[in-house]
Amino acid sequence: MSAERPKRPGLPIALDAAGGDHGAPPNVEGAVQAARAGVSVLLVGERVKLHAELGKHTGSGALPIEVIDAPDVIGMDEHATDVRSRAGASINVCTRLVKEGSAAAAVSLGHSGATMASALLTLGRIKGVDRPAILTHLPAQGGFTTLLDVGANADVRPQYLAQWARLATVYLRVVEDRDSPTVGLLSIGEEEHKGSQLVLEAHALLKALHGHGVNFYGNVEGRDIFAGTTDIVVTDGFTGNVVLKLAEGEAKVLFGWVRDALGQNLKSKLGGLLARDALRGLAERMDPSTYGASLLIGVRGLAFIGHGSADARAVKNALLRAERAHEARLIERLEAAFAASGPDRAEPASPTTPG
Amino acid sequence: MSAERPKRPGLPIALDAAGGDHGAPPNVEGAVQAARAGVSVLLVGERVKLHAELGKHTGSGALPIEVIDAPDVIGMDEHATDVRSRAGASINVCTRLVKEGSAAAAVSLGHSGATMASALLTLGRIKGVDRPAILTHLPAQGGFTTLLDVGANADVRPQYLAQWARLATVYLRVVEDRDSPTVGLLSIGEEEHKGSQLVLEAHALLKALHGHGVNFYGNVEGRDIFAGTTDIVVTDGFTGNVVLKLAEGEAKVLFGWVRDALGQNLKSKLGGLLARDALRGLAERMDPSTYGASLLIGVRGLAFIGHGSADARAVKNALLRAERAHEARLIERLEAAFAASGPDRAEPASPTTPG
Repeated sequence: MSAERPKRPGLPIALDAAGGDHGAPPNVEGAVQAARAGVSVLLVGERVKLHAELGKHTGSGALPIEVIDAPDVIGMDEHATDVRSRAGASINVCTRLVKEGSAAAAVSLGHSGATMASALLTLGRIKGVDRPAILTHLPAQGGFTTLLDVGANADVRPQYLAQWARLATVYLRVVEDRDSPTVGLLSIGEEEHKGSQLVLEAHALLKALHGHGVNFYGNVEGRDIFAGTTDIVVTDGFTGNVVLKLAEGEAKVLFGWVRDALGQNLKSKLGGLLARDALRGLAERMDPSTYGASLLIGVRGLAFIGHGSADARAVKNALLRAERAHEARLIERLEAAFAASGPDRAEPASPTTPG
Repeated sequence: MSAERPKRPGLPIALDAAGGDHGAPPNVEGAVQAARAGVSVLLVGERVKLHAELGKHTGSGALPIEVIDAPDVIGMDEHATDVRSRAGASINVCTRLVKEGSAAAAVSLGHSGATMASALLTLGRIKGVDRPAILTHLPAQGGFTTLLDVGANADVRPQYLAQWARLATVYLRVVEDRDSPTVGLLSIGEEEHKGSQLVLEAHALLKALHGHGVNFYGNVEGRDIFAGTTDIVVTDGFTGNVVLKLAEGEAKVLFGWVRDALGQNLKSKLGGLLARDALRGLAERMDPSTYGASLLIGVRGLAFIGHGSADARAVKNALLRAERAHEARLIERLEAAFAASGPDRAEPASPTTPG
C-alpha cells in the first residue's frame, strides 16, 4: 500500500500545521509519519513552534519536510470571512502555495469554514461548477460509500446536485479506480415521484445525465448509505452534514453500549476479553481517522478539510490521500470532464460569492 | 408495567388488521397479546380471514377482541390518494370509528401514506396546526430521543417546526411524564447563525416560544440524536425520514459487523458465546419493534403508523401505546394547548389540502 510507495519527486503537500483542536503536535506527528512513507510536506505555521515540535521526532531532519513561517492562525472561534482580510493566515498561505504551483494540495484540520472560503477565494471554481461540495467517505457494507455534500452548502439548487454527481464520478474513477461508479440521489422513498421539490427536480436532471458521465441508479434512502447500495450518494449540504454527524455519533454510542454490555457480568467480561482483538479491528473500521480528511471538490486545486479533533493518524492519511489525488491528476481530469458542458446546466447559474 | 394494568372499560383500539407486509398473522397475534394485557381491540379487515387467524390462538374467544368486516385493503403498491374514493377500505373504517367515538385510536402497519391521508381527511387537524407530523422515538443515551417529522412533510415552513415543537412537548408531558422536555432544532452547527434558511427562521420562532409552552435548547446536530442531548428533536420530514432510516440501517449493519467479528476465529467465537445474553439485550434495545409505531401528531384523533415489516411484538406495543395516549387524553390536551394561539403563527397559514 501507500507505505511501500517509493518517494515521488513531485510537489509537496502544504499542511496548515497549527490548525485543529490540538494545535501543532498531531499535525507535525502526522507529517513525520507521511514523510516516512515518502510524502513531501510543507509545514505552514509558527516557525519556532513547528521546529520545536519536529525536534521531538528523532531523524525528522532527514525527512522531506520544510517549515514555512505563518504565525497568524484563524482560530476555531473566529469568522470564516476573516480569510478575506488576513492574507498571512496559515490557511491562506497553504492555498496560495497551491495556486502558485508550489504545493500539490492544501490540507487543514482547522476552521473548516475558513478553509472552504480560502480555497474558493484563492483557487476559484472549476469552470461549469456553481458551488464546490465537501466529499467524504462513510464505511459501508462491501467497503465505503462516497457522500457529498456534507456541509458546504445548506441551501442548494437541483443543478448543484447534478454537478456533484459528475464530480464524484470522476473522483472515484481516477482516485479510487472504480470503473463506472453508481450514483444514488438521497430521498425518502425509492419511487421517482417521492421526495422534496429539490429532489424531484434533481432526479430529472440526473436521469438526463445517465449514460453521459453519470451512472444514475435512482433514489436511495437513509438505509442505503450503510448498505452500500450505490458507490456515491448525492444530497444537499444540510442533509449530508446531518447524515455524517449522525452516522459518527450513532457508531460511537452503539460501540459504547457494546462495551457496557460486555462489562455487565463476569461471563460477558470474559467473552469480551476473548473477542477483544476481533472487535478492535471493527472499531478501527468505524474510526473517522481512517479516511483522514474530506475533499473540497469543485475548486481549481486540491483542498482537504479534516476533523478538528483529528489525530496524527488522520493527518498522515489525509496527506497520503492528497498525494494520491495529485498523482492521479484529479483536478485536470475534473476540468476535462466539465469542459464539454453537460445537460445539467438546465438553468443559468447564479454568480457565486464565496464565504 | 402495561402488562399488569387491569382491563380498562373504555374504548377499544381499531387495528387495520390486513395492513403490513405480512398481512393478517402478525396483526392478529399482536392483538391477542395486547388483549391479554387488557386492551380491547377491533380487528378491521376481511372477516373470514381474521376469524380463521383468531382461531389459531387458543382462548382468544374470551378476549376483548371484535372483528369488523372491511374486505377492501389499500395495498402497499397502490396510491395514498385512493383513500378518497374507497370509503370502505380498512384504513378508512378504522379512522371513521375514531371519528365517531367508537374507537380510541386507529393503528395501521399498512400503507403509511394512505394512513396519513385517511386520518387527515377523516379526523381533520387540531385547530392551530397547519400540518400533522410523524413522531417517533429513537434509542439514545439515557433513554430515547423523540424525533419529528420523520416523513409526513418533505417541504415545510418554519412555523410548522414551531408547531411540532409544541405538539411534541405536550405529548412527552402527558404520555411519557416528562416535566419540561427540552427541544432541539436539528441543524449543521450549534451556533444560532448556522443552518439552512428554513432553520434560521424556525430558530427565531422557537426562541420566541421559549418559556411559552416550549423549553427550547437551541440548535442540535446529527450526533446529538443518539447522545440524547435534548428530549425532542424537530426537523423537516425529509431530513427526519433520512435520519430515521439511516439510524435503523446503520444499527443493522454495525450489529452485523459485530456478529462477523465474533465469528472470526475460535477465540472470538467463544467470547461471543459467553457474551451472548448481554449482547441480546442490546439488540432488543435497538429493535424498532420496541416502540411499536409512530404517532401522526396534529390530527384530531389518535392515529398510529407502524413499519410495514412489523412483527406481533410491534403490533402489541403499538396497541399498548395507543391505549396509553388515549388514557392520558392526549388529543384533548393538545387541543387545549393550541386553543390559546401562540407566537408561532408569525405568518398566516396556507390552507391544507391533504394527500
